[in-house]
Amino acid sequence: MNTPTAQQLDAEDPLAAKRDDFLLPEQGVYLDGNSLGCLTRQARQRAREVVEQQWGQDLIKSWNSHGWIDLPTRCGEKIAPLIGAAPGQVICCDSISVNLFKIVSAALKLRAGRRTVLSTVSNFPTDLYTVQGLQALLGEQQCRLQLCADTELESALGDDVAVLLMSHVDFRTGYVNDMQHLTAMAHQLGALVIWDLAHSAGAMPVMLDDCRADFAVGCGYKYLNGGPGAPAFIYAAKRHQAGLQQPLSGWMGHRAPFDFDTHYAPAAGMQQFLSGTPAVLSMSVLEAALDVFRGIDLSVLRSKSLALTDLFIRQVRARPALADLQLISPIEHEYRGSQLAWRHPDAWAISQALIARGIIGDFRAPDIVRFGFSPLYLRYQDVERSVDVLEDIVCTGMYRQSQFQLRKKVT
Amino acid sequence: MNTPTAQQLDAEDPLAAKRDDFLLPEQGVYLDGNSLGCLTRQARQRAREVVEQQWGQDLIKSWNSHGWIDLPTRCGEKIAPLIGAAPGQVICCDSISVNLFKIVSAALKLRAGRRTVLSTVSNFPTDLYTVQGLQALLGEQQCRLQLCADTELESALGDDVAVLLMSHVDFRTGYVNDMQHLTAMAHQLGALVIWDLAHSAGAMPVMLDDCRADFAVGCGYKYLNGGPGAPAFIYAAKRHQAGLQQPLSGWMGHRAPFDFDTHYAPAAGMQQFLSGTPAVLSMSVLEAALDVFRGIDLSVLRSKSLALTDLFIRQVRARPALADLQLISPIEHEYRGSQLAWRHPDAWAISQALIARGIIGDFRAPDIVRFGFSPLYLRYQDVERSVDVLEDIVCTGMYRQSQFQLRKKVT
Repeated sequence: MNTPTAQQLDAEDPLAAKRDDFLLPEQGVYLDGNSLGCLTRQARQRAREVVEQQWGQDLIKSWNSHGWIDLPTRCGEKIAPLIGAAPGQVICCDSISVNLFKIVSAALKLRAGRRTVLSTVSNFPTDLYTVQGLQALLGEQQCRLQLCADTELESALGDDVAVLLMSHVDFRTGYVNDMQHLTAMAHQLGALVIWDLAHSAGAMPVMLDDCRADFAVGCGYKYLNGGPGAPAFIYAAKRHQAGLQQPLSGWMGHRAPFDFDTHYAPAAGMQQFLSGTPAVLSMSVLEAALDVFRGIDLSVLRSKSLALTDLFIRQVRARPALADLQLISPIEHEYRGSQLAWRHPDAWAISQALIARGIIGDFRAPDIVRFGFSPLYLRYQDVERSVDVLEDIVCTGMYRQSQFQLRKKVT
Repeated sequence: MNTPTAQQLDAEDPLAAKRDDFLLPEQGVYLDGNSLGCLTRQARQRAREVVEQQWGQDLIKSWNSHGWIDLPTRCGEKIAPLIGAAPGQVICCDSISVNLFKIVSAALKLRAGRRTVLSTVSNFPTDLYTVQGLQALLGEQQCRLQLCADTELESALGDDVAVLLMSHVDFRTGYVNDMQHLTAMAHQLGALVIWDLAHSAGAMPVMLDDCRADFAVGCGYKYLNGGPGAPAFIYAAKRHQAGLQQPLSGWMGHRAPFDFDTHYAPAAGMQQFLSGTPAVLSMSVLEAALDVFRGIDLSVLRSKSLALTDLFIRQVRARPALADLQLISPIEHEYRGSQLAWRHPDAWAISQALIARGIIGDFRAPDIVRFGFSPLYLRYQDVERSVDVLEDIVCTGMYRQSQFQLRKKVT
């Protein structure tokens, strides 16, 4: 049996029609939805509405008439089914960094007597920085960040560990950590687990409730397509919500914010995680962007994601000119996220030359070219075309041109 | 000499042309710019650009090509002249609540050995809640919120006070606290001062540098017209910046965020206050909104603000039907902000009836009708019309109708 062509795969793609919900760049192939997802038609429409009608015309009344006041909850409930959370456990607010500070503090209080937050050296830096900030504030007697290699987690999980802080999908390699196994292992040793879903939510099924996860945070602007700097979200398992105490106790987390009491009394449930006034414009756009997931079967999404990365790997390996690209993402489906990372000594120049040719991936220091595969808007022919261009850049030595060598500020 | 009419005042208003920069509601009078400022033409234009072109078409490249990465600094530098701050001391990020947590923590570290944060019972609740959150996290031995009446500040400023936390303008009454005097008094006793500028920035001159203020926070969505939930800002006097340690150490506050180091090292200057990825959509809109202040002389703005509130007071007092409205805002110009608060036993019903008639003010528990006067877009004839409607509502007893009695969620 012949391997199907990219055209055949596109023709048979059950998600093909979803692409029409997006307003994609007119040129090129966008392989960076894991950094910043694309604009949907509904998000564009909502941006106009919330700015021009809701804010511009209806002004302060919109807090009630357009439901601004419930945006954090509404957005949270829209994200919940994407991450395997029953209702009442997800809320949208602030950034991952700020939310982690709330959650790590709250989790440490739940495990009084223990002070260690265990994470891995490969975790996304802001997750580590947040704990370091808390450690500097509380002192090492109260909070201590311990880092280990990914392979040493089991032995590092000692009985002083209050919190295991893990990324579900590694931001560099796309390696999928085993949520079920690691959560169970941590629980057995009396630790709580916080999952960072930045690189999984919206790209694959996440099963927080089924894995009995304790807490999670995630990002609105990657696979959820909420727009640059879109608000983040928090998941807290129902069983923990009653006893929590989070330190960023702003007025929107108060039980009755408009009573203007001088004393803070936390709201029940997830609202206790709110701090200041929500970013209404950004959150409205995120809310509309989430509609693109309506009716999506996450296992179908996952199958397409894996088929896209399979095709990319197959195409690279079929071209001798690309033999110097070393795949550092897992080849096993079970451990592969929705992105691929390739090591190359000229990774920076290659990523820049690709961008100049319209193939947008990104560079991660020191020597990685990273490609993200958003199954909602990417076609198999886009994958094939990307590898065609990559081959051309390497074969012709285009990436050696001086304009691609100079390293600039990157994101 | 006759008192000038509203029409005459409008004809002579040096700021009259600024009104054309705003896209105001087609009907009614908006006296709530102190809760949510109005949309400017430039903000609407930028909202479309940042969503449809920068995000939609240019995507990840916009971090550099459209300067998203520098937005927090650019916005901060645009706010700086409005609050009397020389360059390099203001940055835009997060919410007031989150920013106060950073600042109060940092200020306490600068005054090691002292643990008290002194504030007044009339301060905006989120300011107090933030300190209460920090107190619960650190324990009372490290941080303790002490509240006093506004009149008791002088005697309450003991030698355990590390931080005096004040609103520049009281959110209920509009009373202007004397920044120069209170800052000097606190300094004399060895305390640092944090000013909350939510109800002054953009409505009157603020002289942070001249008063030798230590820190300040403020709001993007009131008189700065940045849109609902617009990001807030932080001011930190240059002399304090080198020795600071703020606990919300996210990746955007790192010296080199894209090196992805595992260890946090704060950026120099104001960037150390950044935490997570900035809310690009909201912050871009705020940045554009700030352009309306270009060329504005803040003393002219202040004169108009006072003339507007003078007119409102004069008009109310001239109408016997309104004798039950008790002004709780200062009558002296020196102490009057850009808002007026009136006490009335039926304040809720009156504010609702006014809204039904197109006059948008707001209610503050338990018995206050509050009106904000944004000098950039409010006309003297709007003030006169508002009082006409208010008189009519009271004279006819319209506010006693049942639909205005039921108390709902308000903002």
